[in-house]
Amino acid sequence: MTLAYDPDNIFAKILRGAIPCVKVWEDDKTFAFMDVMPRADGHVLVISKAPGRNIFDLAPDALSDLILCVQKIARAVKAGTGADGVTIHQFNEPAGGQSVFHMHFHVIPRWEGVPLRPHGGAMAEAALLERDAVKIRAALD
Amino acid sequence: MTLAYDPDNIFAKILRGAIPCVKVWEDDKTFAFMDVMPRADGHVLVISKAPGRNIFDLAPDALSDLILCVQKIARAVKAGTGADGVTIHQFNEPAGGQSVFHMHFHVIPRWEGVPLRPHGGAMAEAALLERDAVKIRAALD
Repeated sequence: MTLAYDPDNIFAKILRGAIPCVKVWEDDKTFAFMDVMPRADGHVLVISKAPGRNIFDLAPDALSDLILCVQKIARAVKAGTGADGVTIHQFNEPAGGQSVFHMHFHVIPRWEGVPLRPHGGAMAEAALLERDAVKIRAALD
Repeated sequence: MTLAYDPDNIFAKILRGAIPCVKVWEDDKTFAFMDVMPRADGHVLVISKAPGRNIFDLAPDALSDLILCVQKIARAVKAGTGADGVTIHQFNEPAGGQSVFHMHFHVIPRWEGVPLRPHGGAMAEAALLERDAVKIRAALD
């Protein structure tokens, strides 16, 4: 069973400008912004502008556009933060780790020997998010 | 700096048939097989037939084909295993969690209240992998 998309989820509100975010990238198909509960400094969320609850229902064209944006953001996150690597997570349904029901990829910079902070941890200050966003935007293709 | 693709990595050898695997799906662009160190029963790896070390260097067309295969496999994993959700991981460079340097996605079925087994844990018996592969193949579109 595929559950319906709820257009009032928090990421849909961010896309409509009803909730603020620290934006990293936007085009007509995709949108990237800083995770407010970063598991590492420089943790970005990448979403489609198309409605889709998760990987089970997102339209194929939107999914292709989304993963190409993830690639662009992953390169910029690594270059901009000076990370050694990048971990990508994508969660589907609550058992899969999903807590916002608008399809999204987590793009998380990683450094050797530094574990991820817990999922759903402390809110970061906006100034810290903006500091990292500046570096990542500057490294975009 | 983007590191070069090594055509002698273990997944390249699986693609060439030089190392056996429990196959779930194959077309001219993509290949999916059971992870021999499953973090949950039904854990599938999805790879491109194109050479690519990770998300930093895989060609865009190959990445689009790959994510559409991930979607197909995620639906089949959920339906075939009866999972409540699916977790997708994609690791880039050792600091990002990558241990085989051929671009791949982990598609892992999840059940409420059941944590993942550790990454790089025990090898599963082939019969167990085949049992789960049968269910997943039967649920493919």
